[in-house]
Amino acid sequence: MRDFSTNHDGLSLNTATVRKQWPLDRIIEECARREIRAIAPWRDQVAALGIERVAALLRETGIALSGYCRGGFFPAADAAGLRAALADNRRAIDEAKLLGSPCLVLVVGSLPGALSGPPAYYDIARARAEVRDGIAATLEYAKSVGMPLAIEPLHPMQAAERACINTLEQALDLCDELDPQRSGALGVAVDLYHVWWDPKLAAQLVRAGADRLLAYHVCDWLSPTRDLLNDRGMMGDGVIELKKCRGWIEAAGYRGFSEVEIFSEQWWAQPGELVLDTCIARHKSVV
Amino acid sequence: MRDFSTNHDGLSLNTATVRKQWPLDRIIEECARREIRAIAPWRDQVAALGIERVAALLRETGIALSGYCRGGFFPAADAAGLRAALADNRRAIDEAKLLGSPCLVLVVGSLPGALSGPPAYYDIARARAEVRDGIAATLEYAKSVGMPLAIEPLHPMQAAERACINTLEQALDLCDELDPQRSGALGVAVDLYHVWWDPKLAAQLVRAGADRLLAYHVCDWLSPTRDLLNDRGMMGDGVIELKKCRGWIEAAGYRGFSEVEIFSEQWWAQPGELVLDTCIARHKSVV
Repeated sequence: MRDFSTNHDGLSLNTATVRKQWPLDRIIEECARREIRAIAPWRDQVAALGIERVAALLRETGIALSGYCRGGFFPAADAAGLRAALADNRRAIDEAKLLGSPCLVLVVGSLPGALSGPPAYYDIARARAEVRDGIAATLEYAKSVGMPLAIEPLHPMQAAERACINTLEQALDLCDELDPQRSGALGVAVDLYHVWWDPKLAAQLVRAGADRLLAYHVCDWLSPTRDLLNDRGMMGDGVIELKKCRGWIEAAGYRGFSEVEIFSEQWWAQPGELVLDTCIARHKSVV
Repeated sequence: MRDFSTNHDGLSLNTATVRKQWPLDRIIEECARREIRAIAPWRDQVAALGIERVAALLRETGIALSGYCRGGFFPAADAAGLRAALADNRRAIDEAKLLGSPCLVLVVGSLPGALSGPPAYYDIARARAEVRDGIAATLEYAKSVGMPLAIEPLHPMQAAERACINTLEQALDLCDELDPQRSGALGVAVDLYHVWWDPKLAAQLVRAGADRLLAYHVCDWLSPTRDLLNDRGMMGDGVIELKKCRGWIEAAGYRGFSEVEIFSEQWWAQPGELVLDTCIARHKSVV
């Protein structure tokens, strides 16, 4: 297992962590100042600044991407919606490519419309089939441009609105189905917040193997958790055994960044400088 | 699949559903008035009234139990705590027996102390081992008095505090380990609120079979859900495909009650009469 205690070369910052404090150019500047070597930006943050400007800032600072957030949301109420989702995922792939991301993270979606009201349908098996078909169609284009797709299983408490892929096993089953030759074009993003509870986590990380482990996200699970979306904890403040889990994923062959992704009203209310400094300190001490 | 539309003979009421409106004697009286044939009471409600009085009321009204809530919470910080949990589970078994329950429902527990503060330890694998050992020890006594134990997998969002058994598959793996002969003494309580999201639900219900399906709980999953514990929905108000799921469990051989269990600040704020009448109406129309 790599030693994280002496530097933070293995740290990446998911830029949602300080999205309420700063726009993306300031985030990149503050990361560069702290020698944070990688970020994972969100499409809305990139769009707000202009993607060419973001690409230029990354070149100037030498900051890499650990992932690009996000594609997905494949299920839809009708054929036009399904087509629109595919078109949007192509655009996300193009953006990820332009920014030099190692993968496009997929939050696959679930019951269509559930994010903003009653869903168009309630059949989660149908949503899962539409996700499978959507990834299959997107994978062709992703392969043609060389942009790996990373399926992110989301916590079961987000199964209605955000993702109907809810365990690492389920994500890997889909990888086996759509990419049986293990081409490297399809894999998973393992976010401990979503999967820490899973009794099959260690075994499924081994099953995934280095070629399917495309991203690794860390934060912590607070006990109690007071909100289903925006109450993630800083590493060390919750119950996840972070070092044990990193041991598992490294034993499975993963050597990439540990990407800190904290959706938290509590941390969004703090000065961005404090958040980044705390991320670095905790990365060394508990990740 | 049984026809629930013409009567509510298949309905049981988990008495937590109206626990803030009424004490248990009033709950039993209101159920009897509505010809609700079964309830699943909680130990604190029974203790408040006196178990002999509860037993007498059940005899007088002819109301049966669909389960008794609850045993479990096996993990502990030390050996004395583990022993205390075993002793408490024996008492729960005795109470369940006295009340004529068909099973004792087990909410197995997880990180010790997490319900009230920082846990005594963070090793969820240790908690799972202590759960296994605790059920194994309890099972001997349960068999001796003829009280089946029903392991209830709880939603992964409750994995830190309440139960480290979080999928039906995990619960059934434990049944296979501790009761390979399928004696009938160990099975599962399937609460749709906890397992509706699981892509393996249908397959695991088949695997369980009639002899391991000891209880079936219904409510609904609200979208959005605003609280991790007390925001369950009335059947029909959320996204769970209730009839499809009942079709699965009946195809697997289950013929018992559908037990309505709604932890909800919203419904606790309503008149108890309205809650019960709504449960009956929804049982007929959407369960």
